[in-house]
Amino acid sequence: MLLSSHVSKVDLEARKRALETIKKKFLDIYDAIMINEEPKMVIPKRTLSNTIYDEKRKLLILGEEKLVRRYLDAHEARRFMQTVLMASIIYQALISNEYPTIRDLYYRGKHTIRYRDHRGRVNEENTWDEQSESDSVLRDIEVYTDLLREDMLILSKEKGKVVGDMRIKSGDDIIDLSKMGHGAYAIEPTPDLIEFKDINAEFVLVIEKDAVFQQLHRAQFWRKYKAILVTSAGQPDRATRRFVRRLNEELKLPVYIITDSDPYGFYIYSVFKIGSITLSYESERLATPNARFLGVAMSDIFGDPSAGKKPYLSETERKNYIIKAKEMDIKRAKELRNYKWFQSRKWKRELDIFEEKKAKLEIEALTSKGLSFLIDSYIPTKISSSDWID
Amino acid sequence: MLLSSHVSKVDLEARKRALETIKKKFLDIYDAIMINEEPKMVIPKRTLSNTIYDEKRKLLILGEEKLVRRYLDAHEARRFMQTVLMASIIYQALISNEYPTIRDLYYRGKHTIRYRDHRGRVNEENTWDEQSESDSVLRDIEVYTDLLREDMLILSKEKGKVVGDMRIKSGDDIIDLSKMGHGAYAIEPTPDLIEFKDINAEFVLVIEKDAVFQQLHRAQFWRKYKAILVTSAGQPDRATRRFVRRLNEELKLPVYIITDSDPYGFYIYSVFKIGSITLSYESERLATPNARFLGVAMSDIFGDPSAGKKPYLSETERKNYIIKAKEMDIKRAKELRNYKWFQSRKWKRELDIFEEKKAKLEIEALTSKGLSFLIDSYIPTKISSSDWID
Repeated sequence: MLLSSHVSKVDLEARKRALETIKKKFLDIYDAIMINEEPKMVIPKRTLSNTIYDEKRKLLILGEEKLVRRYLDAHEARRFMQTVLMASIIYQALISNEYPTIRDLYYRGKHTIRYRDHRGRVNEENTWDEQSESDSVLRDIEVYTDLLREDMLILSKEKGKVVGDMRIKSGDDIIDLSKMGHGAYAIEPTPDLIEFKDINAEFVLVIEKDAVFQQLHRAQFWRKYKAILVTSAGQPDRATRRFVRRLNEELKLPVYIITDSDPYGFYIYSVFKIGSITLSYESERLATPNARFLGVAMSDIFGDPSAGKKPYLSETERKNYIIKAKEMDIKRAKELRNYKWFQSRKWKRELDIFEEKKAKLEIEALTSKGLSFLIDSYIPTKISSSDWID
Repeated sequence: MLLSSHVSKVDLEARKRALETIKKKFLDIYDAIMINEEPKMVIPKRTLSNTIYDEKRKLLILGEEKLVRRYLDAHEARRFMQTVLMASIIYQALISNEYPTIRDLYYRGKHTIRYRDHRGRVNEENTWDEQSESDSVLRDIEVYTDLLREDMLILSKEKGKVVGDMRIKSGDDIIDLSKMGHGAYAIEPTPDLIEFKDINAEFVLVIEKDAVFQQLHRAQFWRKYKAILVTSAGQPDRATRRFVRRLNEELKLPVYIITDSDPYGFYIYSVFKIGSITLSYESERLATPNARFLGVAMSDIFGDPSAGKKPYLSETERKNYIIKAKEMDIKRAKELRNYKWFQSRKWKRELDIFEEKKAKLEIEALTSKGLSFLIDSYIPTKISSSDWID
């Protein structure tokens, strides 16, 4: 056992839970072999056609379709082998107090199998070649066991940061997120193991851009407005999404998200809110269906006469700050229109303005009006007048 | 003044220092105008030909060459205007307790100047069009005033993280870097304002990859081996480099760096150690000339019979773990050979092996041998047997 004396209690308990679940799920296979039956696994399908947008819960979820992975099926045997291999690597890592990454798991399983075929010829086959293969197998295990990778103590790089008037317990430490100086608390890759201790905050503000987070933090926005300030530093990773979801679900804090005003920013918002289509099974735990898009909205820049909304920027500011949309942006906007959660009246209007003006705007353009504009005018006004998109 | 009551004392003092320096430097221009002389600035040249590798200090530094930026020179007038504009924006931000980013500065200065030329025609000219222009002007101001952007409270996104048995003061808070739970402390963008309080560590270990940092942290490597554990999460940013330099210079801690074994990893090491060629003026404060490359070395993978060195990997492991080098890698290796600091006997050998084998290896391949291999064998053996490259 690796350094077990130093390992925190929450980790040991998490390992125990994961080990039991994996054992139970894979014991069926063992049992089948023992009574000379064909081993098989019944796994929820992760296909697009089995991905459903649940309008009521406002979440992407997996439907009821299942696939049966059979050992004695030539089309399935390789994938069967890979699934059992991956499960055994994870199991081994769990009992050895290891913390693999998905890249690790790929390397741990990567080797060449030599076998004799029915004609007696020696063949060689790699367990897997690319990490995309081993990652896909890991996803199968996640839906098969109903354990997310974090539950199996699989770690990953982590970009999310947080500050605010709040105490948490992580590992064996109590951490005061209001005492981080000019730095911040970098969220752990297993945010389900965090315990919320006490909190003095009224809402969560998620900032896409780390540099703007730094500015708001340095000016103590979170203290003045009783906010928990989070940055995803771009496209949010799993841990940041789960952390935000828990703040919303368990502490009942409203979540507001600020991104650049462009289809990429809108998409980042939707990853927080809905999840990603290709990984819908994660959404049930990682997405925050109640998250609100605070800005920067196209209607904040150009106004929206149809709703009697005035812009937050003057004509000169707009001229200096807006950037011409690229082909890629326009293409992405078209894609967003396909998603049900972008088909509300307000989002349609946003996408209309974008396509009409073919312009985008970065958050930094607002801070360049003066940080106090962002802190004491734009954000509080948007929140107090409910000028967000749901 | 923005939220001045909440702003930390170190920030206010830093502002005062920066304001005085800028004032002194630019007062000359004001004085010249007042006595009807041509205003000009004498600025150290940031050209490649004025970039010198100081073999003794093992640092990239700017040479003695200067350029004279004259107001009444048609080739220089635009750049002169930009420099004064940028200085005034920074000055304004400093007295307003703002924390601009370089993107901000770009937006703050971006506007169109209308003027009448000598024929009486009205012309329009933008102050600057692209951020590359305003960034370049900012660099001029850095070398002109001898203030780095951080000294002027210009913030940026920041990826670096740290844990270890050490207390620091940042802003008004004392932060215990050994009490971060499973998370970490995200380094502030102005690491010169950090005060080191007390420390119980024998060396600094810098890990290129955040995911491996997470693994080492979770297994409490830093506690067992009395290390300060830092990750740059890829290419290091300025704050991470400055933080590491300060740990080395002020606390006399040896610094070991671990990257992937490929020319890109070697380059990341050299950015920590030497700095970047295009920004050599930063190196005097950001580079850590004593930093040692701990691994992963090509000779760790393949051994080096010429030096009687055995590999850390078995033949089978090597076969499973190494990745074929790409054209880009081979091109980069050739570039590295041009740099003086890669022309030592050991580095030549590393680059020889790379070019011979045309193979690379990720750190994760080592953790996949078992985290305990990395923690209890590879790293301690390399350090205790001085198996690093200087």
